[in-house]
Amino acid sequence: MDVELTCYLSGEIHTAWRDEIEAAVDELDLPVDLTGPVTDHAASDDCGVTILGAEQNAFWKDHKGAKLNAIRTRTLIGEADLVVIRFGDKYKQWNAAFDAGYAAAQGTPYIVMHGAEHAHALKEVDAAAFAVCETVEQVVAMLRYICRGELVRPTPSLSVVR
Amino acid sequence: MDVELTCYLSGEIHTAWRDEIEAAVDELDLPVDLTGPVTDHAASDDCGVTILGAEQNAFWKDHKGAKLNAIRTRTLIGEADLVVIRFGDKYKQWNAAFDAGYAAAQGTPYIVMHGAEHAHALKEVDAAAFAVCETVEQVVAMLRYICRGELVRPTPSLSVVR
Amino acid sequence: MDVELTCYLSGEIHTAWRDEIEAAVDELDLPVDLTGPVTDHAASDDCGVTILGAEQNAFWKDHKGAKLNAIRTRTLIGEADLVVIRFGDKYKQWNAAFDAGYAAAQGTPYIVMHGAEHAHALKEVDAAAFAVCETVEQVVAMLRYICRGELVRPTPSLSVVR
Amino acid sequence: MDVELTCYLSGEIHTAWRDEIEAAVDELDLPVDLTGPVTDHAASDDCGVTILGAEQNAFWKDHKGAKLNAIRTRTLIGEADLVVIRFGDKYKQWNAAFDAGYAAAQGTPYIVMHGAEHAHALKEVDAAAFAVCETVEQVVAMLRYICRGELVRPTPSLSVVR
Amino acid sequence: MDVELTCYLSGEIHTAWRDEIEAAVDELDLPVDLTGPVTDHAASDDCGVTILGAEQNAFWKDHKGAKLNAIRTRTLIGEADLVVIRFGDKYKQWNAAFDAGYAAAQGTPYIVMHGAEHAHALKEVDAAAFAVCETVEQVVAMLRYICRGELVRPTPSLSVVR
Amino acid sequence: MDVELTCYLSGEIHTAWRDEIEAAVDELDLPVDLTGPVTDHAASDDCGVTILGAEQNAFWKDHKGAKLNAIRTRTLIGEADLVVIRFGDKYKQWNAAFDAGYAAAQGTPYIVMHGAEHAHALKEVDAAAFAVCETVEQVVAMLRYICRGELVRPTPSLSVVR
Amino acid sequence: MDVELTCYLSGEIHTAWRDEIEAAVDELDLPVDLTGPVTDHAASDDCGVTILGAEQNAFWKDHKGAKLNAIRTRTLIGEADLVVIRFGDKYKQWNAAFDAGYAAAQGTPYIVMHGAEHAHALKEVDAAAFAVCETVEQVVAMLRYICRGELVRPTPSLSVVR
Amino acid sequence: MDVELTCYLSGEIHTAWRDEIEAAVDELDLPVDLTGPVTDHAASDDCGVTILGAEQNAFWKDHKGAKLNAIRTRTLIGEADLVVIRFGDKYKQWNAAFDAGYAAAQGTPYIVMHGAEHAHALKEVDAAAFAVCETVEQVVAMLRYICRGELVRPTPSLSVVR
Repeated sequence: MDVELTCYLSGEIHTAWRDEIEAAVDELDLPVDLTGPVTDHAASDDCGVTILGAEQNAFWKDHKGAKLNAIRTRTLIGEADLVVIRFGDKYKQWNAAFDAGYAAAQGTPYIVMHGAEHAHALKEVDAAAFAVCETVEQVVAMLRYICRGELVRPTPSLSVVR
Repeated sequence: MDVELTCYLSGEIHTAWRDEIEAAVDELDLPVDLTGPVTDHAASDDCGVTILGAEQNAFWKDHKGAKLNAIRTRTLIGEADLVVIRFGDKYKQWNAAFDAGYAAAQGTPYIVMHGAEHAHALKEVDAAAFAVCETVEQVVAMLRYICRGELVRPTPSLSVVR
Repeated sequence: MDVELTCYLSGEIHTAWRDEIEAAVDELDLPVDLTGPVTDHAASDDCGVTILGAEQNAFWKDHKGAKLNAIRTRTLIGEADLVVIRFGDKYKQWNAAFDAGYAAAQGTPYIVMHGAEHAHALKEVDAAAFAVCETVEQVVAMLRYICRGELVRPTPSLSVVR
Repeated sequence: MDVELTCYLSGEIHTAWRDEIEAAVDELDLPVDLTGPVTDHAASDDCGVTILGAEQNAFWKDHKGAKLNAIRTRTLIGEADLVVIRFGDKYKQWNAAFDAGYAAAQGTPYIVMHGAEHAHALKEVDAAAFAVCETVEQVVAMLRYICRGELVRPTPSLSVVR
Repeated sequence: MDVELTCYLSGEIHTAWRDEIEAAVDELDLPVDLTGPVTDHAASDDCGVTILGAEQNAFWKDHKGAKLNAIRTRTLIGEADLVVIRFGDKYKQWNAAFDAGYAAAQGTPYIVMHGAEHAHALKEVDAAAFAVCETVEQVVAMLRYICRGELVRPTPSLSVVR
Repeated sequence: MDVELTCYLSGEIHTAWRDEIEAAVDELDLPVDLTGPVTDHAASDDCGVTILGAEQNAFWKDHKGAKLNAIRTRTLIGEADLVVIRFGDKYKQWNAAFDAGYAAAQGTPYIVMHGAEHAHALKEVDAAAFAVCETVEQVVAMLRYICRGELVRPTPSLSVVR
Repeated sequence: MDVELTCYLSGEIHTAWRDEIEAAVDELDLPVDLTGPVTDHAASDDCGVTILGAEQNAFWKDHKGAKLNAIRTRTLIGEADLVVIRFGDKYKQWNAAFDAGYAAAQGTPYIVMHGAEHAHALKEVDAAAFAVCETVEQVVAMLRYICRGELVRPTPSLSVVR
Repeated sequence: MDVELTCYLSGEIHTAWRDEIEAAVDELDLPVDLTGPVTDHAASDDCGVTILGAEQNAFWKDHKGAKLNAIRTRTLIGEADLVVIRFGDKYKQWNAAFDAGYAAAQGTPYIVMHGAEHAHALKEVDAAAFAVCETVEQVVAMLRYICRGELVRPTPSLSVVR
């Protein structure tokens, strides 16, 4: 029987990696529920003041927005069986590292995706991870293996081992 | 994919705010399960003695009723992803503040609704909240944003950002 | 919206109280899942040795049986929103009091049913309960009130307050 | 052997009830560590802006202060074996009810002190309490009994039962 | 290095078993802190009404007393590394079985002491215990072994194995 | 009503015991969801390096594979109501004992299957189990009893007691 | 009575902020136990391979070191009543954000120190904090207030309010 | 300030590794409390039947002994900041792997000591560990580093980096 997973996709919001994972999960028909934060950067920044009232001080604008977003992220990380956290090339991305610490303290396994250039700076985040990888293909291969036990060997074999 | 939320509506029971939220959630077809206490004031006061036997002392009448109501409220707050707590204009409403403390200790996010005149007296309750607002429209806008990432900008734009 | 409850019926197994509650829940169409221990006394006593092998010493026969039964009871008490515990007229019924302590430590509300003659001896068990009653009718009236907020007033009114 | 207790004194800060309890505990030499919030009202209100910087909006002044006070109160309620919560004659005192809910969700026993006129409004708070009383003398008598098992009977006996 | 234990002695209060354990622990100088409920039966029954006010209904007298006693017992069972629970010859002793369930749900090991005649009725309580015995000597021998690893062999050897 | 169980089958992967349990559960139509680790030994060993990149050092190859497998096993053991752990004739099978300790600390009941020759070496694992058995038939009989209360007596009776 | 605090100082290790806090705590004689990570950068990087054996691949060198450091940090964050997390001017400092998430999930209050230029990027980290500040003086003033309720007003008054 | 650690030494009991660690900890004056199981093999096997009464069936002899030993081990693993688990050359040592799983589920860091020949069979146990090593010297070096941040570099430098 396949294993059903709820998988929260945390971190970088400026590339299409979430869509790529979703497409691959659909194509393989994996029993994985993908969740994530609001990825519209402007909406994510403005939600607090738009709904709850303007602030003169940028700090409180950010504060209201971040707390409103946190209702969603806390709920979804709390429900996740697995968190995948991507660190992109740009920005500080402290929220991604925060989510890693949150998942670790909860005892929820997480996978980190990042380029090799960040390996040393992310060593504490990686050390508490269950896997560290670079590509969407690797994430999808792991989801496939975790859910179905299917492992695609590289050429020349290419046969699916199950 | 939309985020499904179970949302407990705590506090004031003398205005129609729960119905208004329910109507708006229905109209927007949001994936939100709304729960709440028994809102019939007389039934809520009398349930203990009606079912379990009369008491001469008002204290024990209240005690039996409050404990019976607590079976419902503990269960529903325990299941909630989010608690919305409304403080109205009248009464002490200590049970609303109790629910806030209960949610906080459980780690469940809560939103507080109250008029500006209560802001100072509610500062500890507000400080542990994930959002503080005044109107049903704001609560609904937050539920919409949390579930769907949809943020309705005020005029002139009015466009839905998603 | 009605509140769905999972309700574990613990304790006395020699009268038909579980069936009576089940019949009333069915008649009222309450959204209550009723669970309970294996109530066949002989099976409950013999299950351990029948499946796992005979024992010369009665203590170990009891031990194997009690542990096998505990797999079921731990699972169901763990899943319950509410536990109803009935103390009958006969026997020591220490397992019923054990279940009360277990539910209390888990933070799961429980209701105790017993005759007035046991009130003093059960005072610690009653003190941690959310309600204490004597009859099946009272249990059903509580389930109805908790799930639907319906309170049936005694005559002369008899009207359902909702 | 005496039972050592850490007891957090929550709620009303405008009368000398904490000092009276402390004096009685000292006189009886009870092994009770008494803790509590900062009871200087002005300092409690101003601490946030004084240390962390002024705010134009009173809401954020309160917010910063309430959060700073919460570092102390969360720590001490977390460490308490018992919480005593006093509701006075005046003010909304929602923070006191918040502390009650917080203690209840943590599983920490609490005692409520209040005048009879508040009994109905506090019924939910009282229902989750381990004792409800009105006077400092009653609190001290409970601490004495809990720690030492000493119960002072009223006249004519007056003898200490141990 | 010796293991320090905090050991709560629950259950029967009409024989001197607690004193006997204490004496033996003192004689062997075991690093064991012994705790327990208030064992003065009259004080334990009357504490609620004596301190908190008289009740006409015996049920509420018991209720107030049992809750006040529970402040002590919950605190001490919560702090215990080990609970020893004695079931005597008389009375229902449901509070002892309640304590067993409470300890089990908390994950705290407990030892049960009872006569062979209660073995079948206590099978669920015994099944969750870490040891079942009949005498004070056995309890003390276990405490000695747990703390120091010392096991006194029966004759003819009598030598202490360490 | 039948009890639904989620049952994780841990341990030995070189015989067909999981398939046999699954076949019997299907035949009896028991409401049991069976889960387990990836049982393809080669895939289980190679998954880490195949997906995440080759390693020169066998230790890190094992490390990457074991962590990837742990995402599945942690999730499934976390969801299980019951864990069945089989120790076979060969190999060290330390992962099976690890799963037993993990389940015990989580408070999840587990059943151990092993031959009599391993009884002494497995005494700590067995002591924390809810049942110890040798055969698939015994596991199935327990699942049947736990879910349905059905106990099949040995000859001459053979009747199903329910 | 002063409140005793155990305070973990997380984050930036290239300036003397920890020493400055320690000096101020000593001067004020505050009952605060200050803890923190190993702050020798070279030792922190090399500890894994120095003790556990060299690695050719920098990733595994980092991995071994980060895990060894995590034994210390997990223990100390687990014991902390309060975490103070400083983000400096340089480096990614993802481990600091990880610690914030870890503390948040544990329910441990934390304070963030950072320059105004990081406010937007740290908004999620700040939103879950109990206070956000920039200087060591502010941290010390908070510790003083939390422990003793002492609030030093700015000029012209300068009087200590207690 | 040095970090105080409580460290439980689990596993192999036939060599003097615990004494060697203790001697080194004493020599370095590290603030480490070392705890462990009863290491007298005969006493550990016989404690149950010696104290609680003989058994004809070896299984129940083992059962009684293992549960009595578990009172000690559960208490000490529960109190440990760190667990060190040694797998020796001989025996199945399933209890050591059980302790590893127990510590992992509790969130307590553990270190594994074993020879290289066991690496593959222990891969799941090692994967959840915070460090894997072979010698007592390595354990002591880690304790020294964790407590004091002292790292002894190999020759030629030999200087203590602090």
